[in-house]
Amino acid sequence: MTETSSAVNSLMAAIADVGTDPRRGGYSRPVWSPAEKDLRAWFLQEAHARGLDTEEDRNGILWAWWDLPAPARAESLEGSRRGALVTGSHLDSVPGGGAFDGPLGIASALAAVDVLRTREATGTLRRRRALAVAVFPEEEGSRFGVACLGSRLLSGAISTQKALALRDADGVTFGEAARAEGLDPAHMGVDPEALARIGQFVELHVEQGRGLNSPDHLTDGAPALAVGSTILGHGRWRIAFHGQGNHAGTTLMADRSDPMVAASETVLDVRRLARTQPQARATVGRLEPVPGGTNVIASRVDLWMDVRHPDDAVTAGLVEDIWRHAQQAALGEGCTAELTEESFSGTVHFDPQLAATLTESVRRTAPTAPLLPTGAGHDAGVLASAVPTGMIYVRNPSGVSHAPEEHVEDDDATLGVQALADALEELL
Amino acid sequence: MTETSSAVNSLMAAIADVGTDPRRGGYSRPVWSPAEKDLRAWFLQEAHARGLDTEEDRNGILWAWWDLPAPARAESLEGSRRGALVTGSHLDSVPGGGAFDGPLGIASALAAVDVLRTREATGTLRRRRALAVAVFPEEEGSRFGVACLGSRLLSGAISTQKALALRDADGVTFGEAARAEGLDPAHMGVDPEALARIGQFVELHVEQGRGLNSPDHLTDGAPALAVGSTILGHGRWRIAFHGQGNHAGTTLMADRSDPMVAASETVLDVRRLARTQPQARATVGRLEPVPGGTNVIASRVDLWMDVRHPDDAVTAGLVEDIWRHAQQAALGEGCTAELTEESFSGTVHFDPQLAATLTESVRRTAPTAPLLPTGAGHDAGVLASAVPTGMIYVRNPSGVSHAPEEHVEDDDATLGVQALADALEELL
Repeated sequence: MTETSSAVNSLMAAIADVGTDPRRGGYSRPVWSPAEKDLRAWFLQEAHARGLDTEEDRNGILWAWWDLPAPARAESLEGSRRGALVTGSHLDSVPGGGAFDGPLGIASALAAVDVLRTREATGTLRRRRALAVAVFPEEEGSRFGVACLGSRLLSGAISTQKALALRDADGVTFGEAARAEGLDPAHMGVDPEALARIGQFVELHVEQGRGLNSPDHLTDGAPALAVGSTILGHGRWRIAFHGQGNHAGTTLMADRSDPMVAASETVLDVRRLARTQPQARATVGRLEPVPGGTNVIASRVDLWMDVRHPDDAVTAGLVEDIWRHAQQAALGEGCTAELTEESFSGTVHFDPQLAATLTESVRRTAPTAPLLPTGAGHDAGVLASAVPTGMIYVRNPSGVSHAPEEHVEDDDATLGVQALADALEELL
Repeated sequence: MTETSSAVNSLMAAIADVGTDPRRGGYSRPVWSPAEKDLRAWFLQEAHARGLDTEEDRNGILWAWWDLPAPARAESLEGSRRGALVTGSHLDSVPGGGAFDGPLGIASALAAVDVLRTREATGTLRRRRALAVAVFPEEEGSRFGVACLGSRLLSGAISTQKALALRDADGVTFGEAARAEGLDPAHMGVDPEALARIGQFVELHVEQGRGLNSPDHLTDGAPALAVGSTILGHGRWRIAFHGQGNHAGTTLMADRSDPMVAASETVLDVRRLARTQPQARATVGRLEPVPGGTNVIASRVDLWMDVRHPDDAVTAGLVEDIWRHAQQAALGEGCTAELTEESFSGTVHFDPQLAATLTESVRRTAPTAPLLPTGAGHDAGVLASAVPTGMIYVRNPSGVSHAPEEHVEDDDATLGVQALADALEELL
């Protein structure tokens, strides 16, 4: 069995060159970029090699079906797919991200199918339902600004109208980009038939913080795996500061309305105010001055902030506080400010029954595997409002994610597939 | 004569649609972009329509020659071009810049040639030497980071090696871009023959601050024109802050080394320290977090600062002060910082004799035209170290430059051409 589980490492090795980013380091695989499309093609090829039946649904989600054999089906193929067990993750990345965030869940799902097929062939597994591997688009929101866009559309957590109007950095709307990929924007959005196919959803993912590191940040003695308990509530807000663009050399310091100054004060306020709330995390990782010339006082600066806290009311209060300070900073510089909420997801508690089943299965491989909260958003978190979902995390010795340093040891990836296969077998 | 002078307005109108920037407003015409190349083609066409002999030199500078007629030439054509009178400016723009910064000087030069040809035809002008109109590439430094790159190469104010290695935002070197435009990087750099052709250089330019506005910032009663006295010493420095890229949701506030925080503190320090030095201007108009994702703590932030002061020692001291504070800010965040001087030009005093001649000529059109210092850099400032140079400024009622609000009234542009033609006649 171990040999089949370790296939995850050769699957990951096969895509190690796709979408590398020489400037930022790591990988840049935004949704529907050549790199992400290469990965989608790779996934379809691997699925076909396993005899899985693939399809792309109307929201751009890829499905690969391991159906029940015809004699075992009580009804039509379509009927037998209702209430199926689904596992999967995503293939897109943040700019300059790591190799594992997303693809590990897909490669592990494919390897787990291999394990389960062997068990079925040898008679140790008897399935009651179909299994599907799903690939969700734009999980990171790195192109269109809203994370988990595919699962949000599927489950109705975002309106179709709002989603189609989202724009990337080049001004291309999500609707236009979807159409260019052969999707029909008129048919995108909440998809009850597709949702009804998901009996349960299990996502395997690289752990993204220090949750599986021992206190000295080494992994010695820490378990290789964990099961998800909660996802921190989180959202994205954009603040646009408007000032007076002007010449950097001819404009006296006293004559300026410089939005870069107001934005910089706000970056410091974001950090300072977040520190007053235990467990809060608030980040400005993206900031864009317009026009962005060295010898030009900016006319506008957009900053994006990511704010997270287990208590949604605390998150809302923190954003309000930051916004009040941002308006003051703008006023002090003769600038104006506007706030836009780009997305918000409340704290998610994964289905307790599914979590219990996952824990039992995972502990066969990693006896001390804990139930772990996470600060990272996932499609499994978005789908939790519609269907029972759960997650399995694989240890990340660097404690770093969304960066090239993100890492998973081959042996841990193999353990992850074993645990995932055991859990899926239990649920099938 | 007024009718010919006003041709500057139809020349400007003809290029009003080239390189407009729908996102930033105004114009984005970086060197060798399709927009700037359209303007270069337009210039060559207008020059040919006037019977001028055009050429591109080995640094990408365009020249349009109004030679002495053969009978009046004492020597060869090439010999007669030595020590010529040269006027001109540039066609490139900052991102989202105004319509006049650069092109006004080129259009005015072409219109002034029309005026002078009429005067020669009617016998009121007798020339002793050739006149050329020159177009300098990359005056703004908006693509490769060093302003006045064409005139710096021509005069040796930047080494060829350093210039060729400059990179644009896409990683393309100046050498590669030059080669793509048909230039030979091996032959770029200081050009004594081309320099010897410039007896004097006169640049007409839109005024870029409130220098020709009355104290209430209206232009009523203020003169339409001015003559340049000095250019404020100025330079560009880049500070790169390096931290630890990581996940915005999973990384505790206490575990961060966030270069965005250090960079923001530095933006505020730049403003605060500049205010302690009367006449100093210091600006951060460009700041780039890497990787620049909303849900990613940046691993690196580059900021560019533009610092100017009449006293070069004060500029140097100010940059040192800022740099000391930036290092402290980096240290406080567990980050590191590095400083790079991208360019520096000391304060320029224009040739006093040429300034006196220009003042006398300009005051025929604008009797109260002052001698005006400026905070803006110009090719005339770079060339001042090699040849006598001078400048004529045209009133800008908005007081705003490097932004869409930059403006010149048609009547003022017409007056500018009259004054330029008078000055050139005096010098020819």
